[in-house]
Amino acid sequence: MPKNIKYYRKAFTHKSSVTSSDKHKQYNERLEFLGDCIIDAIIADYLFQKYPNESEGFLTKMKSKIVNRKSLNQIAVQLHLDSYLQSNIANVKENDALGNAFEALIGAMYLDKGFDFTKQYFISKIIERFFDISFLEANDTNYKSQLLEIVQKKKQTIVFDSEGVEPGPENSSQFVSIIKIDNVAVATAKASTKKEAEQRASKIVIESMNIH
Amino acid sequence: MPKNIKYYRKAFTHKSSVTSSDKHKQYNERLEFLGDCIIDAIIADYLFQKYPNESEGFLTKMKSKIVNRKSLNQIAVQLHLDSYLQSNIANVKENDALGNAFEALIGAMYLDKGFDFTKQYFISKIIERFFDISFLEANDTNYKSQLLEIVQKKKQTIVFDSEGVEPGPENSSQFVSIIKIDNVAVATAKASTKKEAEQRASKIVIESMNIH
Repeated sequence: MPKNIKYYRKAFTHKSSVTSSDKHKQYNERLEFLGDCIIDAIIADYLFQKYPNESEGFLTKMKSKIVNRKSLNQIAVQLHLDSYLQSNIANVKENDALGNAFEALIGAMYLDKGFDFTKQYFISKIIERFFDISFLEANDTNYKSQLLEIVQKKKQTIVFDSEGVEPGPENSSQFVSIIKIDNVAVATAKASTKKEAEQRASKIVIESMNIH
Repeated sequence: MPKNIKYYRKAFTHKSSVTSSDKHKQYNERLEFLGDCIIDAIIADYLFQKYPNESEGFLTKMKSKIVNRKSLNQIAVQLHLDSYLQSNIANVKENDALGNAFEALIGAMYLDKGFDFTKQYFISKIIERFFDISFLEANDTNYKSQLLEIVQKKKQTIVFDSEGVEPGPENSSQFVSIIKIDNVAVATAKASTKKEAEQRASKIVIESMNIH
């Protein structure tokens, strides 16, 4: 049972339902900030223990497959958070507000019950219930192919300008990739392989599309 | 006193000092991944408690002022981690390896002593010792001016193409900013003000410069 109900009430209060706009304490954005970082820490620990022999790169990729805008929104819908959220949003299920409320809920639980409780809850009730970890493990998030799909849908042209550049730190070779959409360079990234540089640049473009 | 010394030993083992390259367990990158997320969670909690009336945007900005590549490297130098780090790097103090080892150290402490102990340690021995929080609060991180400084040093030209675009979610106005360096668009970002869009785009450019 919750010890302090006020945190949970705040987690379910969207900015749009609060009239006095200057009172950050009254709605869930601060809790969402906290919950986002708590979720990252829990997943980092979970993956670290689950995959004792995998590289940091593998762990980072798996983390972003588990927590992202889309997965948080989907979890929130499956938890029926829309019945709890106080908001003035017309189509709340087509909005990031639900995923944000879920992050805020985890922030509230952390404040109320502490890190270890929240970690146990998140692993057993969220990760193990909503994610097929072996499926995620097998399916690589391919930002380049995602981006190509988006661009084709919008009937835009896309060009990857990728080339080797001067040696990077510790003499590793370096590649730089510039992505041009409709002839405008929209992102650039460096990495030690051409493939990874293109993936990173594609990720930047995809993420900048999600910025509201 | 540490309960499990092996974590700390690993935190101070850089990849360059390990000969069998396929053994991710032997060097500190996995611990660095974990420690990075633990540090974020600790700082989010610290700022949430310290600033009960500030917005999520303020908390996010403060967090990035406290933890970043530069500050982590500086803390690591001040903690003399260079005397502990096993590596084959020539100028270890001019390398991110020290800051990374510091993140790994926090990951090791978390595994050894748990979240609450690590949080207390980090707040009292790191944040309160190394950061002037009121100074950081007063000084805004201005990514645009940082970027202008970098570009001027390199004698490159920079142009900010910023304009209002179609209304965003909930009818808020939207601005998009494209940064062109030497006539090549290198980043783009959206926000509800022109100033913020330029700051976000500048941040993308600065961070892409730090990718190795």
